[in-house]
Amino acid sequence: MRIFVTGAAGFIGSSLVDRMLAQGHQVVGFDNFSTGQEHFLQAAGESPNFRLVRGDLLEFDKVQEAMAGADLVVHFAANADVRHGTEFPRRDLEQNTIVTWNVLEAMRRVGARRIAFSSTGSIYGEPTVFPTPENSPFPVQTSLYGASKLAAEGLIQAYSEGFGFEAYIFRFVSILGERYTHGHVVDFVRQLNRDAGKLHILGNGEQRKSYLYVQDCLNAIEVALNRSPDRVNIFNLGTNEYCRVIDSAGWICERMGVQPQVSFEGGERGWIGDSPFIFLDCSKIRSLGWAPRLTVREAVVQTVDYLTGNAWLLEARP
Amino acid sequence: MRIFVTGAAGFIGSSLVDRMLAQGHQVVGFDNFSTGQEHFLQAAGESPNFRLVRGDLLEFDKVQEAMAGADLVVHFAANADVRHGTEFPRRDLEQNTIVTWNVLEAMRRVGARRIAFSSTGSIYGEPTVFPTPENSPFPVQTSLYGASKLAAEGLIQAYSEGFGFEAYIFRFVSILGERYTHGHVVDFVRQLNRDAGKLHILGNGEQRKSYLYVQDCLNAIEVALNRSPDRVNIFNLGTNEYCRVIDSAGWICERMGVQPQVSFEGGERGWIGDSPFIFLDCSKIRSLGWAPRLTVREAVVQTVDYLTGNAWLLEARP
Repeated sequence: MRIFVTGAAGFIGSSLVDRMLAQGHQVVGFDNFSTGQEHFLQAAGESPNFRLVRGDLLEFDKVQEAMAGADLVVHFAANADVRHGTEFPRRDLEQNTIVTWNVLEAMRRVGARRIAFSSTGSIYGEPTVFPTPENSPFPVQTSLYGASKLAAEGLIQAYSEGFGFEAYIFRFVSILGERYTHGHVVDFVRQLNRDAGKLHILGNGEQRKSYLYVQDCLNAIEVALNRSPDRVNIFNLGTNEYCRVIDSAGWICERMGVQPQVSFEGGERGWIGDSPFIFLDCSKIRSLGWAPRLTVREAVVQTVDYLTGNAWLLEARP
Repeated sequence: MRIFVTGAAGFIGSSLVDRMLAQGHQVVGFDNFSTGQEHFLQAAGESPNFRLVRGDLLEFDKVQEAMAGADLVVHFAANADVRHGTEFPRRDLEQNTIVTWNVLEAMRRVGARRIAFSSTGSIYGEPTVFPTPENSPFPVQTSLYGASKLAAEGLIQAYSEGFGFEAYIFRFVSILGERYTHGHVVDFVRQLNRDAGKLHILGNGEQRKSYLYVQDCLNAIEVALNRSPDRVNIFNLGTNEYCRVIDSAGWICERMGVQPQVSFEGGERGWIGDSPFIFLDCSKIRSLGWAPRLTVREAVVQTVDYLTGNAWLLEARP
């Protein structure tokens, strides 16, 4: 199979690239390296089945040219920064919504008809039902990030209906594991790496969050692509658990062998648009035979080990 | 109050402008006249409280300049063409989603904090619950039009959360009445005006649609603005009825005194993205004391009278 991957140098994108190459597929990776890391594509770069295209998804012609011949488009490129949405309000619109239109329109023009997309549990805003199923009540957006992903989902669905695409939309909880570079866990490890005596937490620490290990996430995506034949296939991806931010902070400190003074800033929400409780109902993907192998705690610990073993990532821009 | 109205020369926009001027408000109207009509602003143009700005909402600086000083932004400008979405797939993205971002960002910069927005019942895609309430299950989009309005709603909600806006989102059924220029009813009247012996219907005529009279629609908007104080206020606007396309065709023929041969094209859906059944639960707006004065049939008949009395509109581009 010929696979076109956007965000190929990112955390989840590069992990998928390695897996697809190992299975013998041909992969074209596309990345603007705004947050992607050259290092993550080092192994892929040695494969004759891999080609990297450096470019921004806003450059339509470049996208279309790079995509030609693809059987499957995996669209993982995104601005994944929920927290700073209000500081750069156009970024989510451009990097998550408009580029998704570019990807879809390029697919239409080159004849690619199958897309897998990384959406987010943030799309549920502050839900009223827990665990939150895919068909929960019509959500109200609380962040520009969530709004931009909702917009992208709608575009993908409309293109599927209008042009006969087959779409796989995955609403992720926070993903952890090797190459993880963005979010709570790296923030905490970075702080403790600089000064093991202090840990500052945004929010009151009682925010309840869900995490999933990256290889479990990729397993789920493969299961969905192989076993769910609808035109529009929407799946929550997470574990059957959640933890408080203060719990994950405790596991991280324990693993790093530190006992910092902990301080808090803000209340129920760590920042505007922060969701105090994310817990997704994943029975739909489980009904296809998938289950995660790592618990939330195991995923956190594995990520701490990866980060402390790759300290250069802690020094990269946050 | 100082009100900024986008799509001011359109059907609903110009009707709102006239009403707001009659109530003594100051109004700045913004329109690119892509589908707006000079004629609709003739009366408004004679008021010292009205100012018209010709421009496209994609021109950000122009929008911001025209909006300065507004207490309320009424964002009614849109590409309202569901049917041709697949022919011009970028149009909905630009005219419905990106311009809404421009309107919101201009509001943030000039300090305007209250917005009323014309969304659509099409946002529910092909719903599973009838009548469809505002908090119906998370929808799947079936048209680029619906997707672009969903995206706009999400942006408005996120801006409200992020920047303290107060938002009024109205999910309209098809609106009818004076100045109506787009949709089933004008299509049928136009056909019969050219040749009273033939009527061609897209779809099998069994599609079930809801209509609301424009003055009832504006009454509802006023009621919501005055009586619903939440940060994000979402209302379905329609009647408690629906009719089949073939029913409305019958009422139109009866009113025009014609008995055409009727032909059909397509099946359950008249075109890609056409919804076979639109019927909204409007109990939320009704609970604030609003009720429509005209039935669906009365609204259709009143529209036929308006169109046959303004034949120049039938000759305008469809």
